[in-house]
Amino acid sequence: MSPGAGSPITKKGILERLDAGEIVIGDGGFVFALEKRGFVKAGPWTPEAAVEHPEAVRQLHREFLRAGSNVLQTFTFYASDDKLENRGNYVAAKISGQKVNEAACDIAKEVAEEGDALVAGGVSQTPSYLSRKSEAEVKTIFRKQLDVFKKKNVDFLIAEYFEHVEEAAWAVETLKESGKPVAATMCIGPEGDMHGVLPGECAVRLVKAGASIVGVNCHFDPDTCLKTVKLMKEGLQAAKLKAHLMSQPLAFHTPDCGKQGFIDLPEFPFALEPRIVTRWDIHKYAREAYNLGIRYIGGCCGFEPYHIRAIAEELAPERGFLPQASEKHGSWGNGLSMHTKPWVRARARKEYWENLLPASGRPYCPSLSKPDGWGVTKGDVELMQQKEATSDDQLKELFKKQTFKSSSAC
Amino acid sequence: MSPGAGSPITKKGILERLDAGEIVIGDGGFVFALEKRGFVKAGPWTPEAAVEHPEAVRQLHREFLRAGSNVLQTFTFYASDDKLENRGNYVAAKISGQKVNEAACDIAKEVAEEGDALVAGGVSQTPSYLSRKSEAEVKTIFRKQLDVFKKKNVDFLIAEYFEHVEEAAWAVETLKESGKPVAATMCIGPEGDMHGVLPGECAVRLVKAGASIVGVNCHFDPDTCLKTVKLMKEGLQAAKLKAHLMSQPLAFHTPDCGKQGFIDLPEFPFALEPRIVTRWDIHKYAREAYNLGIRYIGGCCGFEPYHIRAIAEELAPERGFLPQASEKHGSWGNGLSMHTKPWVRARARKEYWENLLPASGRPYCPSLSKPDGWGVTKGDVELMQQKEATSDDQLKELFKKQTFKSSSAC
Amino acid sequence: MSPGAGSPITKKGILERLDAGEIVIGDGGFVFALEKRGFVKAGPWTPEAAVEHPEAVRQLHREFLRAGSNVLQTFTFYASDDKLENRGNYVAAKISGQKVNEAACDIAKEVAEEGDALVAGGVSQTPSYLSRKSEAEVKTIFRKQLDVFKKKNVDFLIAEYFEHVEEAAWAVETLKESGKPVAATMCIGPEGDMHGVLPGECAVRLVKAGASIVGVNCHFDPDTCLKTVKLMKEGLQAAKLKAHLMSQPLAFHTPDCGKQGFIDLPEFPFALEPRIVTRWDIHKYAREAYNLGIRYIGGCCGFEPYHIRAIAEELAPERGFLPQASEKHGSWGNGLSMHTKPWVRARARKEYWENLLPASGRPYCPSLSKPDGWGVTKGDVELMQQKEATSDDQLKELFKKQTFKSSSAC
Amino acid sequence: MSPGAGSPITKKGILERLDAGEIVIGDGGFVFALEKRGFVKAGPWTPEAAVEHPEAVRQLHREFLRAGSNVLQTFTFYASDDKLENRGNYVAAKISGQKVNEAACDIAKEVAEEGDALVAGGVSQTPSYLSRKSEAEVKTIFRKQLDVFKKKNVDFLIAEYFEHVEEAAWAVETLKESGKPVAATMCIGPEGDMHGVLPGECAVRLVKAGASIVGVNCHFDPDTCLKTVKLMKEGLQAAKLKAHLMSQPLAFHTPDCGKQGFIDLPEFPFALEPRIVTRWDIHKYAREAYNLGIRYIGGCCGFEPYHIRAIAEELAPERGFLPQASEKHGSWGNGLSMHTKPWVRARARKEYWENLLPASGRPYCPSLSKPDGWGVTKGDVELMQQKEATSDDQLKELFKKQTFKSSSAC
Repeated sequence: MSPGAGSPITKKGILERLDAGEIVIGDGGFVFALEKRGFVKAGPWTPEAAVEHPEAVRQLHREFLRAGSNVLQTFTFYASDDKLENRGNYVAAKISGQKVNEAACDIAKEVAEEGDALVAGGVSQTPSYLSRKSEAEVKTIFRKQLDVFKKKNVDFLIAEYFEHVEEAAWAVETLKESGKPVAATMCIGPEGDMHGVLPGECAVRLVKAGASIVGVNCHFDPDTCLKTVKLMKEGLQAAKLKAHLMSQPLAFHTPDCGKQGFIDLPEFPFALEPRIVTRWDIHKYAREAYNLGIRYIGGCCGFEPYHIRAIAEELAPERGFLPQASEKHGSWGNGLSMHTKPWVRARARKEYWENLLPASGRPYCPSLSKPDGWGVTKGDVELMQQKEATSDDQLKELFKKQTFKSSSAC
Repeated sequence: MSPGAGSPITKKGILERLDAGEIVIGDGGFVFALEKRGFVKAGPWTPEAAVEHPEAVRQLHREFLRAGSNVLQTFTFYASDDKLENRGNYVAAKISGQKVNEAACDIAKEVAEEGDALVAGGVSQTPSYLSRKSEAEVKTIFRKQLDVFKKKNVDFLIAEYFEHVEEAAWAVETLKESGKPVAATMCIGPEGDMHGVLPGECAVRLVKAGASIVGVNCHFDPDTCLKTVKLMKEGLQAAKLKAHLMSQPLAFHTPDCGKQGFIDLPEFPFALEPRIVTRWDIHKYAREAYNLGIRYIGGCCGFEPYHIRAIAEELAPERGFLPQASEKHGSWGNGLSMHTKPWVRARARKEYWENLLPASGRPYCPSLSKPDGWGVTKGDVELMQQKEATSDDQLKELFKKQTFKSSSAC
Repeated sequence: MSPGAGSPITKKGILERLDAGEIVIGDGGFVFALEKRGFVKAGPWTPEAAVEHPEAVRQLHREFLRAGSNVLQTFTFYASDDKLENRGNYVAAKISGQKVNEAACDIAKEVAEEGDALVAGGVSQTPSYLSRKSEAEVKTIFRKQLDVFKKKNVDFLIAEYFEHVEEAAWAVETLKESGKPVAATMCIGPEGDMHGVLPGECAVRLVKAGASIVGVNCHFDPDTCLKTVKLMKEGLQAAKLKAHLMSQPLAFHTPDCGKQGFIDLPEFPFALEPRIVTRWDIHKYAREAYNLGIRYIGGCCGFEPYHIRAIAEELAPERGFLPQASEKHGSWGNGLSMHTKPWVRARARKEYWENLLPASGRPYCPSLSKPDGWGVTKGDVELMQQKEATSDDQLKELFKKQTFKSSSAC
Repeated sequence: MSPGAGSPITKKGILERLDAGEIVIGDGGFVFALEKRGFVKAGPWTPEAAVEHPEAVRQLHREFLRAGSNVLQTFTFYASDDKLENRGNYVAAKISGQKVNEAACDIAKEVAEEGDALVAGGVSQTPSYLSRKSEAEVKTIFRKQLDVFKKKNVDFLIAEYFEHVEEAAWAVETLKESGKPVAATMCIGPEGDMHGVLPGECAVRLVKAGASIVGVNCHFDPDTCLKTVKLMKEGLQAAKLKAHLMSQPLAFHTPDCGKQGFIDLPEFPFALEPRIVTRWDIHKYAREAYNLGIRYIGGCCGFEPYHIRAIAEELAPERGFLPQASEKHGSWGNGLSMHTKPWVRARARKEYWENLLPASGRPYCPSLSKPDGWGVTKGDVELMQQKEATSDDQLKELFKKQTFKSSSAC
């Protein structure tokens, strides 16, 4: 596919594409997808698989590329040095943050060569910030990852998954030092960041810090994320600022989330299966995102390659082409016309899938949950970085707190 | 991992393992997993990816191996020549069934060398049978795949996914010609096969046809599959026959299925997400399968590597070891003790996950569906093999039939 | 309405009606309806309101009569002397069973005169039987109620709400001593009575004991009750016995019940609201009961007058007339054509209500429950009659047992 | 009970009670309760039963009184002359509005004598207002009912069930002409009235019009109603106005309602059963209403006497006594200590019922619905008063509109 050494030179940059009104399709979240495949540990959620199992990371990049992604994010989520040594994590000591970031860049660049995709280096929120470290200290953490991104010459940068706009703006300012375009997404809902800064104001601060693209990622379902981006858009308009919009929601239905999103749901992270969105939910999401003026449309945790393909299929009329992976998918289910059973062939059409209200198969389960959420934020002792593993005594304290809550509130 | 050329010689065969009382962990279904990744087309569900995208097939085999699978099934589901040219499928003409079967064997064998896994060559039900072809004709179809399995010297053979015991017995008889051990699974529930033969009787016929291992795969959820295998076990006991038991259920909750299983559910195959089982559901399944005396325990459609890992983790006390992939998973969620948020750390324990009733996040959806199922079986004109693609007129007829049904019954 | 003194003489008896193929509409259960109105205590469920609040009992009889009931059952449920002094109940001592039974007869007869309804004297299961009293002792208990029914000259007798066919047959034999027609219903489901006697066999024993009408009442929803009556019908046919069939189900959806019915559901008796059936559910029930050959069609706990009216409206084509209360109800909701809001007027038709799947408005609640049921029956110490109120210590023991169950099984 | 002629003189008035900080318990809605009993027609919802079936109205008053109601509202809902002749209603022509209003007063007064209850004369919204009649014309309609209330000398007056504050204020002004205390409730939610006037502003206008007590009734569930009253309270505080607060919510769960409340739910009015609140829901409601400072606490459609009793039982510690009907109800279910089955006795406690999440028994139904609501209000042609019955052609037009909606939106 890739014509070789010359190709990177001819690729249009992220801002060229967006400025020209092109739709840019993002990829999906790696930590959830690779956790299911056996390469990421839930809890720390760190990306050492880039070093330990590069073929697994490479394969997932390829699947997203094939599904239609125009951006491959380096698998550097939570790859800051402080996170890699938090609560018993061995990665900083045994591998080193630099090696993880370098390996992630190499893999993303290798796969990007196979198609028309850009590579984006990504940073995300840090334990240092939650532990009340200074702006200078937090920026130093970001700068270590940025050094790798500069050395590896990624196409642009993303500051993603921030719960506090203060830290997000620090990240954007640091990334801007590179001179490359910067996108910034926060994992917030319509209620705003953990300090109560509303989405419109968050967007304004991010653009003022230097971001060319702003939006949300993670923590909420597509519907909620679009509401939040809409509020960001309105905030920017009111402030007479210009920026491209971006959304990378969860692939889980979360109408019952509180301010902090799906982390608080009792099902997080090991029983979210009944909430997984269908490809048809994603068709709806892609159309609504487009109608809202968002042009960088991707996903986050829970997205599998077929979800990204659904974005590309929904927007194929606007883009003029289908992704490679559609060779294995009839739009709106028309591949079912090849099914043996006649009543399954009868499902080979848009009207059927668009209107279906799928059952959970779980009659003993409710449809909504009451979120946890203990109301703690930056600086709270229970959020502080801690090198040692959580001790049994610490866990027992938490178990008690949990029990108390459920017996009083359930 | 693999010590090289000598290792295949030292691997214990499937019957040696089972006869010794060992637990054998199967793998999960490939067509659903690879459909989500973009390499298999829903509708035909044929395995040409073995030729077209070998790296994707290889990666999935590796993930299951790493998760604990002791058997790697060749990706030859629906790879019979008649299926590869059904209803517009191009595979027979452009690639050939032989090449698909050979490539699938090569990949499975390559990965099996990397661990302690056996390779099983698999055949499944054929359009020829549904189209009323003769026993000799149907056996000829199976024999073409068997020729490849013999040439590639797989470790044993599986006849799987049969709705009619008559055809399953023909498959077993054909596979037995090779002299290798044969396992046989039917995709039936407690009501028995499509002709009304009960599970106990099905098991008896399969053993008499030559199967050393019998059980069920696909079409129903773990609970239902275990009920069916229990009936098979009782049938064998009543007939004083001996065989090992095997179960490879769906990873979807299907309490509302009719006789033909999840094919009939309105959500099949593109809106099954809310029905996906959690890893904790699989813990329960693995324990109950073990308690029922089943020793070949695996999965089918919907199983991802983390589901197989859950079988291996549940049965680790009996087996004495954890699978490789558990380096990225704390048993019963204890990796969450490394999570930043204290209320998530509080979920790092068995009691929490074992008792959780997860919400669907879909308050406008019901918990159960009424299955379709038009009551057709072998020989019905609508099930006949047809080389040409389903025509628009044929589809319109089916759409009408569907509409009529829903307006009268909904 | 009633033409006066002459009318009782001209009323056709219950067997005359049924033998002539007429549909006989029963009434609904009194204890649940009067509990909601404030005249019956949940727990003992005894009918002392016949003495204490006769106007309330009279009004409910009138409402059922007006809704279409052809039978008014005396409000003598659980009015046996042993029940009226069980576990701290004051009725036996302060009022006397005889007075309760007499008052109940007087009220029913008074209201029956106002229309074309028969009065049926009813007995039900006794604590004496559960406490292993002898056949003679139990029959003596029934005979005391029967003496009143004979003295008040009710039209026929019903032995209802029996969990054990042995006791039901004793009741029938006792009631037959009067020479009046006897109907007998058991509160069992398709699994049969608490001793495992199947419905077909129960029906046979009841007919052999002297019942002219047999069926089921209470404990299960309409669907389940009809399944049970069908089994009774088949049992009678196999035994070449003849009897009229009768059904008086709950007005609660109970698809999740175990063998002992709704008593075991965690919602019994104070949180059954979400399970209450609609009038349209009753239309379906009445039609299916009719199609099954049942001609005595009524209800039990949960039935309100509008549910009985729904039976009468559904079967109006067969009967040739509507009940009085239909002056306040347009069939299939057509009274809504008088509603102010146009979108409510649009609901004035059968198609709308017949196909509606009503929401619970409770997104945090499941759709099914797991029944309790501690597997105890006749003779178990915890079921024994006890004159004193349940002591706090006894309750604490039970609370512990309950807690243990929910923490281990929930 | 009643000591005779002298007693009315000694009863404390509504404002005396509220000014003294007493809790005043209202009654429940009559039209829904009597529809189930067979005396009110759904659609017109008019109260001619006061003339046609006085014993039924009397009995329901008594049940509410016995359950703890301190106010008996005259059964004069929708008894304005224009409503009694709307869309084919015969009441105006055959009975006359005056007779209905008089009979309703007589019955309420008769029952009020039996206990410590006040009689409140009630008016509600009119078709005249929706048909754009003038203020003078609408007030004339109210004045005709008021004339009866004055003649019958009721204790105070209630203007209830108004969707537009403009009309409600007209009603209050008219009722104030009598010199008696006036309470005013609107059937609105937190979004305000049909013209977009917010709850706080509605409360202010009602107090300025002369109401001494303001609040909400009908259309929404307890939770939503309390939110609305809270907004009213805040509006009054901001305006430095004083008034007593009042709430009379539905006994149906309606979290999915739109602005116009339960009228728009597809289940209205004939399939609301799964939404009926339990007595424990009402305990919670009564406590929260009390904590919010509401002292006139009652119910509306769906409330049965046992729901009112639950208010009285919850607030018994504050009031110092239980209602009469509690002789037939152990607080928090402790009457179950008299139940035969031990596992039901184990439910005789607060902890059990308070934490239970009751199942619907309807696994094929969703938990929430999408409301209709065609966005019409005062002056829209489809809301206009019309003496003739809705014609078949008019209905067909509406059916089409409904069908169009459901096929495009479902």
